[in-house]
Amino acid sequence: MKNKEYLLSPGPTPIPAEVLAEASLPIRHHRTPEFSKIFTRTVSGLQYVFQTQNDVYILAASGTGAMEAAVVNVLCPGDRVISISTGKFGARWGDICRSYGIDVHEVELAWGHDYPPEKLASSLKSFPGARAVFTTLSETSTGTVYDIRRYAEIVSKTEALLVVDGISGIGAMPCPMDEWQIDVLISGAQKAFMTPPGLSYIAFSSRAWKAVEKASLPRHYLDIRKYKQSLLKKTSPFTPAISLLGQQCKALERIRTAGLRRMFDHHRILGEATRAGVQALGLELLSQNPGNILTAVRIPSGLDGKEFVDIMHNRYGVYIAGAQVPHQGEFFRTAHLGFMSGFDIITALAAMEMALRDLGYPVKGGEAVKAAQFILKECYCEKNIGL
Amino acid sequence: MKNKEYLLSPGPTPIPAEVLAEASLPIRHHRTPEFSKIFTRTVSGLQYVFQTQNDVYILAASGTGAMEAAVVNVLCPGDRVISISTGKFGARWGDICRSYGIDVHEVELAWGHDYPPEKLASSLKSFPGARAVFTTLSETSTGTVYDIRRYAEIVSKTEALLVVDGISGIGAMPCPMDEWQIDVLISGAQKAFMTPPGLSYIAFSSRAWKAVEKASLPRHYLDIRKYKQSLLKKTSPFTPAISLLGQQCKALERIRTAGLRRMFDHHRILGEATRAGVQALGLELLSQNPGNILTAVRIPSGLDGKEFVDIMHNRYGVYIAGAQVPHQGEFFRTAHLGFMSGFDIITALAAMEMALRDLGYPVKGGEAVKAAQFILKECYCEKNIGL
Repeated sequence: MKNKEYLLSPGPTPIPAEVLAEASLPIRHHRTPEFSKIFTRTVSGLQYVFQTQNDVYILAASGTGAMEAAVVNVLCPGDRVISISTGKFGARWGDICRSYGIDVHEVELAWGHDYPPEKLASSLKSFPGARAVFTTLSETSTGTVYDIRRYAEIVSKTEALLVVDGISGIGAMPCPMDEWQIDVLISGAQKAFMTPPGLSYIAFSSRAWKAVEKASLPRHYLDIRKYKQSLLKKTSPFTPAISLLGQQCKALERIRTAGLRRMFDHHRILGEATRAGVQALGLELLSQNPGNILTAVRIPSGLDGKEFVDIMHNRYGVYIAGAQVPHQGEFFRTAHLGFMSGFDIITALAAMEMALRDLGYPVKGGEAVKAAQFILKECYCEKNIGL
Repeated sequence: MKNKEYLLSPGPTPIPAEVLAEASLPIRHHRTPEFSKIFTRTVSGLQYVFQTQNDVYILAASGTGAMEAAVVNVLCPGDRVISISTGKFGARWGDICRSYGIDVHEVELAWGHDYPPEKLASSLKSFPGARAVFTTLSETSTGTVYDIRRYAEIVSKTEALLVVDGISGIGAMPCPMDEWQIDVLISGAQKAFMTPPGLSYIAFSSRAWKAVEKASLPRHYLDIRKYKQSLLKKTSPFTPAISLLGQQCKALERIRTAGLRRMFDHHRILGEATRAGVQALGLELLSQNPGNILTAVRIPSGLDGKEFVDIMHNRYGVYIAGAQVPHQGEFFRTAHLGFMSGFDIITALAAMEMALRDLGYPVKGGEAVKAAQFILKECYCEKNIGL
């Protein structure tokens, strides 16, 4: 018999009960007016979260499917692109592009490092003729967020398109697609969208659509022109993931009721509380520019990072994420994303105190919790920004 | 307020309550031993249904994603292939191949027509050097089934691979992958597998793996080598559709308990009952070789096929499928697939009698039901083959 579990991972994230319950309803057919209503409401909810007038297309695929859709729909073989490798997921942009014979200029950052916009400006100069810049809003492997607003200011003055992986960031931090002039923006259901994994989302600016019309990379399932055509008929070109879509529709009701402003404040406060908590324990953050989606924390020297994550999970039932290859054991990642509340953060911090003590790290008990409580009070007393 | 609904479509199909309920459980993380157990059980269940020792890979994608995976993982640009266009879905093989610059010899069948194995043998002779033959077990747009066993006998004697779309057929009719020597076999969750759409399945023979190693079409999300590598670690390379996978695992318990023999008998009897019922009304079947997955029935001349399907759905709450482009209005499709029982067939036939009468077609009432009852008695009294 295992302990009660608490999910603190940066995807999947905890799902509200009414969203879980939605999937227990009988399956609907997808070529009906009833389904079209749900489909249309979901698209409109996604547009609200993407802060865009562009259509948002729904793929039955993991986030990587949407990343590949971004690549194959705007490029031609041999095109030059700049790809900013921000970590495990940022590196995927380059991998996908190279699979398709794209000429990739890859900017490799040390994990957790920032990439100042001025550097992007010089990359664009030293690698002229780039058709696109691929980057990441919130790098899920490190918790680092990047200055997409300023990247977009720079890229929009060139011929290149700005393609942004917003998988873990969208909905949890500001990234208004239209206002910032992002050309291709993607996200996924299992992050701030509070829905099980299996759906990913992608939107194209009108500038990006010009590239779509010229793009000549091979594609069928991810051919966004088919999705555009079907959207006019309020449906998807291939059998959609009907139950997940119904769940996303339900979760978007909660997101709309809270409002984006509140979503951002909520995640900001949970992020601040988490950082304050781990720092009160004398732990160091991995990231030069930590965001409010997840916090990556260095394992103190002398401690076994894998063992720490195992104790958190197996002894205390608190599922945080470890570091990914090639940095396994060096840090851990605790999320503050999706349907969590302040007391999920308290739980995570209290369990960290206990697990660290188990490993012989000097913890009195309560110090991380106390630091977080000061910040969380804002959430509960002053601004009432729960979800 | 709408009437209670009955789903008689060939995908999605009705889902058992315990499979629906599974999705209302809290989401699990996918990099845990607990998830690996479910993953491994699901793969093993899929192998049982595919009747194969080959690994079965689980994609977070519609069936079309698995079709594209079959193409991109075994071919090189410029390869020659034979594609049997059996209807709307059979035609998709050719479309996908052409998207990737494959030289397609397309056999275009009139909808509902059979393709005798001897004709495939001559096609292989008149189009030498084909690397693969793409075909369909049960064409969902027409209800026609094809003689995969004999196709495989012919194709296995050549250099070509036999690639079979088993999306609507696998689990409902015999198609043993290993015994018949099928090289690539695909299927999807929302048919006989009794699970919501969003997952598709693909397996490769050892002969097909040799082609995978040489294949040079671009791919990333659908690159099956990544799935093979991850399977060794009892997981998927990209975030899986966790809740759907849990549901598929649950549905496979029911399928294993029933056993394949019973699954096939069950679908056969429901198919026979449906055909007997519509024929008792004087209606004609579309297909030269109708299968036990769904039955396509010609709309009697003078009647409006679209209106018939609308009355079935909107007046009686019975959702059957119409005919797809370019044959809209010419026939309808009623399924006997997945979690249905004999009384779902009775419901469909009784509603057809009522809707036909509404349109002025001569029906006394009860004649289709009576014809079906004689056959269904076998199901309930003699063999007890319910699911």
